[in-house]
Amino acid sequence: MSDSPQLQDLGEQALLKRVQAFCPPLVIGDDGAVIAPGAGQELVVTTDLLVEAVHFSDATTAPADVGWRAAAANLSDLAAMGAEPLGITVGLALPGNRSLLWVEELYRGLRACLDPWQAPILGGDLCRSPTATVAITALGKVTPGQAIRRSSAQAGDVIVATGAHGASRAGLELLLQPEKQTQVPPDLAQSWILAHRRPRPRLDVGAVLRAFNWERVAGMDSSDGLADAVLQLCRASGVGARITRLPLPAGLTEWVGPEQARQWALYGGEDFELVLCLPPRQAEILTATLGDAAAIIGEIATAPAVYLELATGETETLSFESGFQHFGGA
Amino acid sequence: MSDSPQLQDLGEQALLKRVQAFCPPLVIGDDGAVIAPGAGQELVVTTDLLVEAVHFSDATTAPADVGWRAAAANLSDLAAMGAEPLGITVGLALPGNRSLLWVEELYRGLRACLDPWQAPILGGDLCRSPTATVAITALGKVTPGQAIRRSSAQAGDVIVATGAHGASRAGLELLLQPEKQTQVPPDLAQSWILAHRRPRPRLDVGAVLRAFNWERVAGMDSSDGLADAVLQLCRASGVGARITRLPLPAGLTEWVGPEQARQWALYGGEDFELVLCLPPRQAEILTATLGDAAAIIGEIATAPAVYLELATGETETLSFESGFQHFGGA
Repeated sequence: MSDSPQLQDLGEQALLKRVQAFCPPLVIGDDGAVIAPGAGQELVVTTDLLVEAVHFSDATTAPADVGWRAAAANLSDLAAMGAEPLGITVGLALPGNRSLLWVEELYRGLRACLDPWQAPILGGDLCRSPTATVAITALGKVTPGQAIRRSSAQAGDVIVATGAHGASRAGLELLLQPEKQTQVPPDLAQSWILAHRRPRPRLDVGAVLRAFNWERVAGMDSSDGLADAVLQLCRASGVGARITRLPLPAGLTEWVGPEQARQWALYGGEDFELVLCLPPRQAEILTATLGDAAAIIGEIATAPAVYLELATGETETLSFESGFQHFGGA
Repeated sequence: MSDSPQLQDLGEQALLKRVQAFCPPLVIGDDGAVIAPGAGQELVVTTDLLVEAVHFSDATTAPADVGWRAAAANLSDLAAMGAEPLGITVGLALPGNRSLLWVEELYRGLRACLDPWQAPILGGDLCRSPTATVAITALGKVTPGQAIRRSSAQAGDVIVATGAHGASRAGLELLLQPEKQTQVPPDLAQSWILAHRRPRPRLDVGAVLRAFNWERVAGMDSSDGLADAVLQLCRASGVGARITRLPLPAGLTEWVGPEQARQWALYGGEDFELVLCLPPRQAEILTATLGDAAAIIGEIATAPAVYLELATGETETLSFESGFQHFGGA
């Protein structure tokens, strides 16, 4: 197999494309797959892996936080599809010298994230591995035809982002370099650390969307950063976008300056907010209903490129190359 | 966390018990969990992890076989519950220096196992890890109330096993020690190696069961060996059992002797056959319908112990301690 390229030399998107050839075309390209096991109901299925030393460090992340984040990442994918959670399965591969308490703490974190949504843990698997790995699959349900997809954005739509972007990355910075915590007001520091340790899946947004009769919404979550979300939505819908406002957390620019704040919002990732594209009238209703928790950040355009054009004069053309590369680098 | 016991010092059952405290009581204890997302429909969900160097070796297992076995293990859990497959998700954690061809071969193996059952791959996740890990979740559907459980066996039932037990372990032996292949007729050697490399999930059995109106059936698959299956069924149902016949593959005793053949059938595992407990009249219809592919191997008794009492005079009391210990040993 020496003639075949190695995964670390392929972009993540190139690898995904090769693998998607083995999946039916209709179930891929969104945060989860949609299936219809019977009349009157559709299911959304989504899977995420967390690997120790890649996605979390036992030195800096308590096992309960690993559990919370693993559940949150999957519930966020359900939220991105507009689905209501039915439960998750948990696959755990662990070194034999890991303590029972670590495992129980991980499960406590999972449950803490799941409990507000009354989503049960539907069993799973436990086995030995030299590398601690958490594999979660989440199941949700949607009314047939109502799953939120990435591919339905149209020129003229506006882009709505829930929450603030960059807060999780800021929290990570404060955890990695605790001496910096004195540079930030304590309540902000705590809120950013919480955003990183205990991100909240935006399952509330689907409930709001279901409550008023939306005609069309495209969407996904911002787990890989705001830039990635807008780029993915535009590629799937065959459109472009102009981002005119960055939904930054209050106080972030003051702490790290506008350039760093912009980078963290666009590329930091793990904010687990939603990015939605809707007709302007609907977007106004949605943002008015969600209040501070959502804002219009730009608009969808015909041209395929994605531009950042901020009122402050900063401009940038966004591309996938600037984002995460799961198989490259460290 | 130094006061908490390490996983390698706990039995697998003790660990499972602690973890099951976090799951609702009704969804655990079977090969998969059953949920009812809407009226007129039940779903079965099951998850399995395969870890390199624990469950497979890149040196001795082709990636297509890893894929097949991963799919087969999960489809077998669906078969054990009497469910029809809806599809699987695939989580892959791989070292960066793994080749693209390896990944594509793995997917080819998955598809080869899934295709006869028209079960799609419903997306998944790809990430980096020092340890190659395959996490599969399978989804199936059952008619409400018709899922096969472990807990409904009753004294007076007979025990039916599909297929032969020990063939997969015999195939593994021939792969680990190829020089032994000359000791066995070539067609037998090939069939055992195939049983190990490409085990076939017994989804056909559910179709037969659904075709005639069974009043009651308890069951599970024999992925951890025939002894484990009977012990689990008896524990879940609060009964005992007498195994009077071992469903050995033809030629196995002649090759390794009766003692080794018995050990492999009872504890070898990975045969992915089904072990079912039914009223005698139903068992006769089932075995007559399945022909050579199933046989009555014993009966359920009131006393909680599980005895092996073979016509050849061998007797043994079976216990969980004799079986697999996923976190112990090598």
